[in-house]
Amino acid sequence: MTRPRPSDPTGLHRVLDPGRVLPQAAQRLDTRCELWPDEVRVRVERLNLDAASFRQLERKHGGDGAAVRAEVLDIVRTRGKMQNPETGSGGMLIGVVEEVGPESTLGLEVGDRVATLVSLTLTPLVIEDELAGWDGLGEQVPCSGYAVLFGRSIAARIPDDLPADLSLSVMDVCGAPALTARVVADYVEPTVAVIGGGGKSGSLSLAAARQAGAGRLIGVVPHETEAALLRDSGLADEVVVADARDPIVLRDEVHKAGGPADVTVVCVDVPGCEGGAILATAERGTVIFFSMATSFPAAALGAEGLAADVRMVIGNGYVPGHASYALELLRGNDGVRDLFERRL
Amino acid sequence: MTRPRPSDPTGLHRVLDPGRVLPQAAQRLDTRCELWPDEVRVRVERLNLDAASFRQLERKHGGDGAAVRAEVLDIVRTRGKMQNPETGSGGMLIGVVEEVGPESTLGLEVGDRVATLVSLTLTPLVIEDELAGWDGLGEQVPCSGYAVLFGRSIAARIPDDLPADLSLSVMDVCGAPALTARVVADYVEPTVAVIGGGGKSGSLSLAAARQAGAGRLIGVVPHETEAALLRDSGLADEVVVADARDPIVLRDEVHKAGGPADVTVVCVDVPGCEGGAILATAERGTVIFFSMATSFPAAALGAEGLAADVRMVIGNGYVPGHASYALELLRGNDGVRDLFERRL
Repeated sequence: MTRPRPSDPTGLHRVLDPGRVLPQAAQRLDTRCELWPDEVRVRVERLNLDAASFRQLERKHGGDGAAVRAEVLDIVRTRGKMQNPETGSGGMLIGVVEEVGPESTLGLEVGDRVATLVSLTLTPLVIEDELAGWDGLGEQVPCSGYAVLFGRSIAARIPDDLPADLSLSVMDVCGAPALTARVVADYVEPTVAVIGGGGKSGSLSLAAARQAGAGRLIGVVPHETEAALLRDSGLADEVVVADARDPIVLRDEVHKAGGPADVTVVCVDVPGCEGGAILATAERGTVIFFSMATSFPAAALGAEGLAADVRMVIGNGYVPGHASYALELLRGNDGVRDLFERRL
Repeated sequence: MTRPRPSDPTGLHRVLDPGRVLPQAAQRLDTRCELWPDEVRVRVERLNLDAASFRQLERKHGGDGAAVRAEVLDIVRTRGKMQNPETGSGGMLIGVVEEVGPESTLGLEVGDRVATLVSLTLTPLVIEDELAGWDGLGEQVPCSGYAVLFGRSIAARIPDDLPADLSLSVMDVCGAPALTARVVADYVEPTVAVIGGGGKSGSLSLAAARQAGAGRLIGVVPHETEAALLRDSGLADEVVVADARDPIVLRDEVHKAGGPADVTVVCVDVPGCEGGAILATAERGTVIFFSMATSFPAAALGAEGLAADVRMVIGNGYVPGHASYALELLRGNDGVRDLFERRL
């Protein structure tokens, strides 16, 4: 076998684009089955599509599951990875390690059941079953095929004490609680507002903020059904029903609930929440954007246009120890666990 | 005159879109000449188009100035503000205050010569001279017309001791040095890399980082001509020539110059610099993205995909006192002033 270039821990050696770009930015990845010495190959059991990506596909095809499935197959075949061309996002996968290169430093062994904690947007992927077991109607995609992890990728063993789909669902959003905890710890008993507090990353972020010393927790949800669930969970001190896309409503409702917030965490995957999040936040406060629907110019110019002295942070999905931290939050918090189990 | 709604300091009352969005996100603004009580009207002398926006228009029309001018006129006529539909960005303007509403709190008086420090993307604007004095070949646009400032807008008086075009050019990017100084002060003698260190926001950010206690300053520029200018300015300790769109080159060159950087400041208005900036940054370091060409998902998923524990900040164009801080940096620093004067 010819290997045109040595491996790079970033996966650069699998990029097939003419220019030099990282795998995440690449149009097309090399999905060959043979491993470079620092790589790991995983036999895939299931893909978990990013929520923003799945919703876009669902909307585009008017809920026609077969059409959604056909498009996912086409994307993966064309690009060698699952990356929604509209949202730019991907998701994650679970599977079993089937080969470990001699120079891999990921600490994995053949037979380990793992979840990949790097995005599908940079993971070489081959689907071998045409997704025959998936109806195209949900984010969880049963799948037979293989994927490749690079020298610097991240994967976590799936714990034995929790159902696999529950673990996967937690690990999918585990960057949010870890980063929220860090930012909350920069303030003294801050008021924290979580937009989308009833969702997966939102409920974990509320639990993380509490543990990190938040003084008052405000959960914002889109309708009364979700408000009732969030109230029952005990995760928030105040639960507010508001359309996060309406900046004035969001500002006013968060203020009425004890805001403005010192830390605002945006966990809703709908476009147009930047202005409201900024207006809900106190001077010298921080907005953390976890939503993949966030627009960079809308945030940057929005804050400037409102003369808002807020720090705005791009939610980095990687914080060391994030997966085990999120799983600990779930194990130790019945409110979080209930909300997650309802969504499975 | 009927006034359909009371004014809001955000300018919401001038949004003509059916849904409730802030002026920056709006498709169309009300440009009526009559003021709400907290507004200010400015007689416009000149527009300063955002660099990313102007370059996009220039590329699109293959350098045909008349076509660029026609498109700017069309955008402003259609939307009631200057917002490039591709880049989402706008720019700023200078002019003379011609009317101050009785409830305005901006502290301006009729006759003041001012620069607006909020983006043109949210400023109601009427052009009255068809931009007859502009050849469409540069970002500085002589213009006769009027613009409206809201209750919460920001405008700065143009200082007497500096040429107006120099002041404007500094105020256009004044958010960058102020925010850079804040972030640099969070670290002890950090290594700071400024990507695009020879440009306007880049050179001011280098000067600000020095003043805020940076230990080592690395300026990254795209070619040797700019490297020579930056070396002469004395603003950076190390000057590196690298294409910031090539992540591996950027990583390796910054490392060779004494990196990785504790703080990396991205000031180049070209897409695709996210990966390189992340790889040039140390663990627990911060990347500040000032470029309007930054892609939110590319940054968020890129850092995750590289398992990079870096904080990523969206460059907020507003920090209290930013205009006078930037002007002070220019006054006190011949290197900065030389670089700016060369660009006028």
